[in-house]
Amino acid sequence: MLRFESDYGEGAHPRILQLLAASNLEQTPGYGEDHYSEEARSLIRTACRAPEADVHFLVGGTQTNFIVIEAALKPWQGVLCADNGHINVHETGAVEATGHKVLSLPAREGKINADQIRETYSAHYADESHEHMVQPGMVYLSSPTEFGTLYSRAEMTDISRTCRELGLFLYVDGARMGYGLMSEVNDMTLADYAALCDVFSIGGTKVGALFGEAVVIASPSLKKDFRYLMKQRGAMLAKGRLLGLQFLALFQDDLYFRIAAQADGLAMKLRRAFLEQGWKLLYDSFTNQQFPIIPNNVLQRLSGDYSFSFWQKIDETHSAVRFCTSWATVEESVDRLIADLRKPELEH
Amino acid sequence: MLRFESDYGEGAHPRILQLLAASNLEQTPGYGEDHYSEEARSLIRTACRAPEADVHFLVGGTQTNFIVIEAALKPWQGVLCADNGHINVHETGAVEATGHKVLSLPAREGKINADQIRETYSAHYADESHEHMVQPGMVYLSSPTEFGTLYSRAEMTDISRTCRELGLFLYVDGARMGYGLMSEVNDMTLADYAALCDVFSIGGTKVGALFGEAVVIASPSLKKDFRYLMKQRGAMLAKGRLLGLQFLALFQDDLYFRIAAQADGLAMKLRRAFLEQGWKLLYDSFTNQQFPIIPNNVLQRLSGDYSFSFWQKIDETHSAVRFCTSWATVEESVDRLIADLRKPELEH
Amino acid sequence: MLRFESDYGEGAHPRILQLLAASNLEQTPGYGEDHYSEEARSLIRTACRAPEADVHFLVGGTQTNFIVIEAALKPWQGVLCADNGHINVHETGAVEATGHKVLSLPAREGKINADQIRETYSAHYADESHEHMVQPGMVYLSSPTEFGTLYSRAEMTDISRTCRELGLFLYVDGARMGYGLMSEVNDMTLADYAALCDVFSIGGTKVGALFGEAVVIASPSLKKDFRYLMKQRGAMLAKGRLLGLQFLALFQDDLYFRIAAQADGLAMKLRRAFLEQGWKLLYDSFTNQQFPIIPNNVLQRLSGDYSFSFWQKIDETHSAVRFCTSWATVEESVDRLIADLRKPELEH
Amino acid sequence: MLRFESDYGEGAHPRILQLLAASNLEQTPGYGEDHYSEEARSLIRTACRAPEADVHFLVGGTQTNFIVIEAALKPWQGVLCADNGHINVHETGAVEATGHKVLSLPAREGKINADQIRETYSAHYADESHEHMVQPGMVYLSSPTEFGTLYSRAEMTDISRTCRELGLFLYVDGARMGYGLMSEVNDMTLADYAALCDVFSIGGTKVGALFGEAVVIASPSLKKDFRYLMKQRGAMLAKGRLLGLQFLALFQDDLYFRIAAQADGLAMKLRRAFLEQGWKLLYDSFTNQQFPIIPNNVLQRLSGDYSFSFWQKIDETHSAVRFCTSWATVEESVDRLIADLRKPELEH
Repeated sequence: MLRFESDYGEGAHPRILQLLAASNLEQTPGYGEDHYSEEARSLIRTACRAPEADVHFLVGGTQTNFIVIEAALKPWQGVLCADNGHINVHETGAVEATGHKVLSLPAREGKINADQIRETYSAHYADESHEHMVQPGMVYLSSPTEFGTLYSRAEMTDISRTCRELGLFLYVDGARMGYGLMSEVNDMTLADYAALCDVFSIGGTKVGALFGEAVVIASPSLKKDFRYLMKQRGAMLAKGRLLGLQFLALFQDDLYFRIAAQADGLAMKLRRAFLEQGWKLLYDSFTNQQFPIIPNNVLQRLSGDYSFSFWQKIDETHSAVRFCTSWATVEESVDRLIADLRKPELEH
Repeated sequence: MLRFESDYGEGAHPRILQLLAASNLEQTPGYGEDHYSEEARSLIRTACRAPEADVHFLVGGTQTNFIVIEAALKPWQGVLCADNGHINVHETGAVEATGHKVLSLPAREGKINADQIRETYSAHYADESHEHMVQPGMVYLSSPTEFGTLYSRAEMTDISRTCRELGLFLYVDGARMGYGLMSEVNDMTLADYAALCDVFSIGGTKVGALFGEAVVIASPSLKKDFRYLMKQRGAMLAKGRLLGLQFLALFQDDLYFRIAAQADGLAMKLRRAFLEQGWKLLYDSFTNQQFPIIPNNVLQRLSGDYSFSFWQKIDETHSAVRFCTSWATVEESVDRLIADLRKPELEH
Repeated sequence: MLRFESDYGEGAHPRILQLLAASNLEQTPGYGEDHYSEEARSLIRTACRAPEADVHFLVGGTQTNFIVIEAALKPWQGVLCADNGHINVHETGAVEATGHKVLSLPAREGKINADQIRETYSAHYADESHEHMVQPGMVYLSSPTEFGTLYSRAEMTDISRTCRELGLFLYVDGARMGYGLMSEVNDMTLADYAALCDVFSIGGTKVGALFGEAVVIASPSLKKDFRYLMKQRGAMLAKGRLLGLQFLALFQDDLYFRIAAQADGLAMKLRRAFLEQGWKLLYDSFTNQQFPIIPNNVLQRLSGDYSFSFWQKIDETHSAVRFCTSWATVEESVDRLIADLRKPELEH
Repeated sequence: MLRFESDYGEGAHPRILQLLAASNLEQTPGYGEDHYSEEARSLIRTACRAPEADVHFLVGGTQTNFIVIEAALKPWQGVLCADNGHINVHETGAVEATGHKVLSLPAREGKINADQIRETYSAHYADESHEHMVQPGMVYLSSPTEFGTLYSRAEMTDISRTCRELGLFLYVDGARMGYGLMSEVNDMTLADYAALCDVFSIGGTKVGALFGEAVVIASPSLKKDFRYLMKQRGAMLAKGRLLGLQFLALFQDDLYFRIAAQADGLAMKLRRAFLEQGWKLLYDSFTNQQFPIIPNNVLQRLSGDYSFSFWQKIDETHSAVRFCTSWATVEESVDRLIADLRKPELEH
């Protein structure tokens, strides 16, 4: 069985395991105050061209999202988000559990835009009884989105400008940041994220690490005492160096970018193969997640040898499914899948 | 200026003020353990034919909603609700502030139905990753709804049966309960609410009281220690008798029902007048809130003498507005408004 | 039965009921935006010599405390408080329910001092692992305290200076503010509170109102959007004028001060009577709460005609009890109690 | 520099790293539903003789504590705890952040007893106004405690019986469980914990793992939907097998017990050396943490070559410090430290 159903099915890039083993018996201070974490923070600041940024390492994505959002919002504020946003549908109400409403906006291709943000903000204050409604305090985006799509630099700049004008924090969830950055259609850099966002994350879990998300805080007003909240919410790993050394390995020699590029390349190969078959794509993704609409009989045939995620029913004979590549996907697997895709269906 | 913009613009029915004055220097135990509160509870139990029900008096509607919902839900559960539900849009995220997501469903005429509840529940458990999503734990309805519409006994029975089958609590927010019960299209009784719901409220604030909502808990599993939560959330009035004696006055001699009936009657008079003008109604309400769609020039003319709430723009020349009657509305005011409605517009 | 067990056993001063009745059928905007509330705010600002202060009216004391504290603190901060403080022991964990720890300090006569605050603050930051502990963010005092004692102007100035130096908010819970201000040993004014505190409350519930606490916010950084939190936490009364007109009545013609002075005078009369009997006082209170230590046989005898609160066992034959006077206590009651106190015990 | 200042300074036992490497490219389902986690759960159930217990793997100790406590308590309940308990002082108010008060009791040698629990419970319900106070809902113990001391089976049985009689949940935080179980004075087994507690944890972070705590839920009423809360609070690791395989390694061939026994043995060697010097122990610990009271000049001399934690000042010339051994401590280090301890101080 070749698995394409997620990008977190394997362990970690071998370089991470090597560093883990090499450092195993070294004694270091806990809670992220070790030299590995410090070096990793330094490399990330450099990669972001943000020497003043604060960088923290957290364990997982849900944790990262609710802690960043809680740190930024006043008790009566909520966070704007695409209706399909991870915080809105797949985190068991983690943001609400910190007391904040997720204010969802209808998304197109998984994305929202500056106009929607502005309209929501204006509608709030235009209403006489705005104190009876949750006050917008932050905008949450993910890029790549849940559907593999990306915000362009123009879109992101527009959103950033709008947020700054309106006094809203802007947070980008980069759980799949690597796959976004290396996409052939991407025009954003880490430095752009640092310049345009107040805070964003660089995901490790899905891009080569065992686990771990780096949070980059660019906005001075969000920096103070962030570690207190990490500790309170269970996100300050005792052996914090485990996070530091993973990001150290990932940001040395551009490893993070190289493994993401490879995964994207294989995803593009798959994408072309789907299109060659004449199959439509549910979302126009140029990153490691692909959402082809495939005849059910083909899916049935493939499901014996390949795992993938059912996404949604399209009609009586077609379904959209998700195929993921990852840092661990090998070209042979993709080629075999493509070969099998192309096999003609047998007549009944 | 005659005010029709809300049903909480005046103080209280004179009988309440009389009882307040008559009892003023009496010394009673605090926190709802006085004899007025006990008598009021007893009258309400009788009116609900629910001798075993627990009855508590809280100060306001938002408070009532979030305390009832918090008392019922596990930390990872959410409450299903019409998208226009008061808890979803007009309580500044009070439910989320207790840690729970509001799971909104698209409403028709302000209402949701048993099928939607069942589908949402089924979709939750059908999803492999249901633990990553908020678990449905309760259904919140209001009747009358925000739009003045009512759930029929058939609808409510259907919803109740569905909730019981699925293990969801059913809560009805009765902030305008009186106006619902006395509506000419209503077929529900307080006894029906007690039989079909786990918990519901009987609103005082909008139906003759200075303030106050009675919470009727029918479900044994919700009764225990409810007063602890009231105290914790600031809902246990020191001079609790103020709430008790208001509900005592309202439930003696059917005062609550009589004043609500009068308000409904005046609203029906208005409704007929709107329809006679050939104006459509945004929602088909038979309670004290009416939502006519009126030409803007007429609204402009009326706005000098009458206050009402702008609801939404319909087209370039028409708007939907809200007119409320209340226990305090006098027939003369309604008649004068109707007479003015009927005046032909002057030519320009 | 003459009741001395609390200061919230009766309704309200007659002037409040009169204003309530006189205004009953007037239609006003809701949620505290009416002219009564505006006038009351203005009178309170004047009384506090704080023309820039924000004044809000909330329903009850627990509600006031947790909302003020929640508005001020970051998620990882706690509030310092005397171990016997109301928020620490008698509010069912209302502050913790908003996510914040109450950091209790050992009190003397119900009070804490500037040195304790400074030591706690220093100990926090001296600890290498301070991020693993709750960060002090605010100091909560009550004056009068739970034990009827008062902070002098010197003590309050010292605490205020310390808080400002350390960057801690200072909040004074004035649930019994009137009885404190009019005490014969008091040297604080409302203007002093406004000058020395960031925020404080002026209690109505125990000083002549049916219910209601005025919150005076002096610190600019606490003013913004306070009403959002009031709404979210169920503290924004629909008919907000009910609060406004009560404080209007109380702050016209110095009513608040006059009724508090009368209650204090009667309490002093009781105090002198206790001391004349040779009885000790558990706390040295010069406000409306008195805590005499009385032989159990005397208490037994009195308990048939007078109600009072058992406070604590002192030894096998003596108990400390609490007698309260209030705005509603009449001199005849106090005189009768004193006469009965003085009766010699019968021999067995 | 030889480090004795904590038991989480190194990485993990080599067997864990081996298993990590061996399984690295295997694709498994996420979120703890892999076969490694299942095998580890099975081994732990067997070790606890609790075939019906639920076992979950969480990332860290603070996270484990607040999630277990939140899962068990009603919103108005608090958790009883020794005043020095980790949840009370060193988790940045994590429990309060979930809305629950920590009700601290004065501890002796870091421990509380059944009588204290019973008295606190009785005092709560004896108070007329118990609804104004936080309701006791759970007892939290740690064993070993923060001070290295242990609850005996007699003490634990007494506490368990008391909790069951009173309807309180009993939770034991076993962050250092291994060092407790293998202590020469211990008479508890994992099976005893499973029989006497409702829920307890088995710490991995401090006993050989990179990170991870196993939660064993014995009480049926705590089992339902626990994973929802794990997800909501950021404790459900995407690559959950990382936790499973660590506990698998630890519970195969009694590795967990063997490495803990070795650490305890070295700690006893240190303990004897301290006592031989005539130094007192601040706490009478027979586990891996030792708290000797040592002359300051000796500490000064040692601090060049050894790291340890300053604990508290005893008098002008003595301090209590903490020395920890761990699964990673080698006998040579301990021997060198002991030799240095014994060196006579030079005269000045």
